[in-house]
Amino acid sequence: MDKEPNIAILENVRIVLVEPIFGGNIGSVCRAMNNNDVTDLAIVNPRPETDWDDARKLSCNAQAQLDARKEFHTLAEAVADCTVVAGTSARTGFYRDTAYSPREFAPIAMESAQDHKIALVFGREDKGLANEELALCTHIIQIPSSKRYTSLNLSHAVMVCCYELFTAAGHFQPAEEKAEEASSELRERMFDAWREMMIKTEFTHDQKLEHMMMGLRRIFTRGKLTIPDVKILMGLARQSIWVSNQWKKQLKDSP
Amino acid sequence: MDKEPNIAILENVRIVLVEPIFGGNIGSVCRAMNNNDVTDLAIVNPRPETDWDDARKLSCNAQAQLDARKEFHTLAEAVADCTVVAGTSARTGFYRDTAYSPREFAPIAMESAQDHKIALVFGREDKGLANEELALCTHIIQIPSSKRYTSLNLSHAVMVCCYELFTAAGHFQPAEEKAEEASSELRERMFDAWREMMIKTEFTHDQKLEHMMMGLRRIFTRGKLTIPDVKILMGLARQSIWVSNQWKKQLKDSP
Repeated sequence: MDKEPNIAILENVRIVLVEPIFGGNIGSVCRAMNNNDVTDLAIVNPRPETDWDDARKLSCNAQAQLDARKEFHTLAEAVADCTVVAGTSARTGFYRDTAYSPREFAPIAMESAQDHKIALVFGREDKGLANEELALCTHIIQIPSSKRYTSLNLSHAVMVCCYELFTAAGHFQPAEEKAEEASSELRERMFDAWREMMIKTEFTHDQKLEHMMMGLRRIFTRGKLTIPDVKILMGLARQSIWVSNQWKKQLKDSP
Repeated sequence: MDKEPNIAILENVRIVLVEPIFGGNIGSVCRAMNNNDVTDLAIVNPRPETDWDDARKLSCNAQAQLDARKEFHTLAEAVADCTVVAGTSARTGFYRDTAYSPREFAPIAMESAQDHKIALVFGREDKGLANEELALCTHIIQIPSSKRYTSLNLSHAVMVCCYELFTAAGHFQPAEEKAEEASSELRERMFDAWREMMIKTEFTHDQKLEHMMMGLRRIFTRGKLTIPDVKILMGLARQSIWVSNQWKKQLKDSP
């Protein structure tokens, strides 16, 4: 029943490595991508001491992917044009309690990747992704693993995710036309408006603000956010900001 | 469906490496096994020049598996006590035309591994398994991969197979929402607050209100809403209502 995977869809998948430590891992990631027709590699804040010879050696026949990598200063820049942004995490905890397995995530990824760039984000070998980086993600992926030892090699984690996407791409039936999905850049502008609203309406204090923002992010990004969705949410926040500004102006002007 | 860890089944799975070339790959294989609760490693005809330091380094927390490996002169000896013996192969051809994908193979493996030792056999990095070796296998596994580049890294191949077995063994407990899910009644109270907020902040007119509410409902209910989620959302709406009320009171009171 396996169909040929839709390579055009897989070409819309970007693998993003955040500050990887070992050149060998970067090379192995390229090989894993190549085995699964995934070609778009981005590296956030590459380390000056990276052993690129090792990377080249372990990439085997995937040197083209390695050479074509894009480099960015921040994760926000690396995923700015992406709709779905999935961060991988081994740990559980706050904001990580709604994680998808790679298999659950694959059809979600395939649907968006029909028409849009999507990103899978992998953290540092030793420390994974920071909370601010996970905040940029629409989905959290947790790879099933032994309770006794959850820490996967970076290229193994990429391999499992790419393998699931590759497999899903072979079964994928394109869905009907829907409203255009929002990009990460547009989503972040919306969250900026909500942050401002929380402050201006005095809903929360500085100390609790980021905690509240994380909660809101998880609620809003459980499903796909379309451009009309974002416009409603952004409009609501801006209206509340406007009302709050009026209120404060009057407070100041009142005798 | 039994989701309790069934480590006993996975302990019956043996990973057999035939004449592996690179010590680093052997170590990475141990780590991949460890991540998936597979512990039984056998090496057929180990090469005298094997770099065991490299193996040790890349095995990370799986040095116990590495040290506990069994060594055999021939594949026949390494799988003598096994019922199911599955050989992995990237190529198609003689003996290879009835291959299973790792996903198709996993339930077959699990059924036998309940009461018997089973083996997954991986060939040399450069030449794979010889036909005589494949002849010893009861099943051929072919890992789905790009037509353009089918050659997987040895530890990546082991990772994908172990991941499928681990998943099939019912180990993975998808992270569930820890917080209690909100009842319909609580959700509706929240939506009432948002409706009032939309009016009070003058975000929308009566005619467009229900249309906007439907948009908001779709956004908020794409995922499961927990009680803490609802409390944040309700709090936000109420705060905006309060600010709007203050604003209007001042408007009325101002001279």
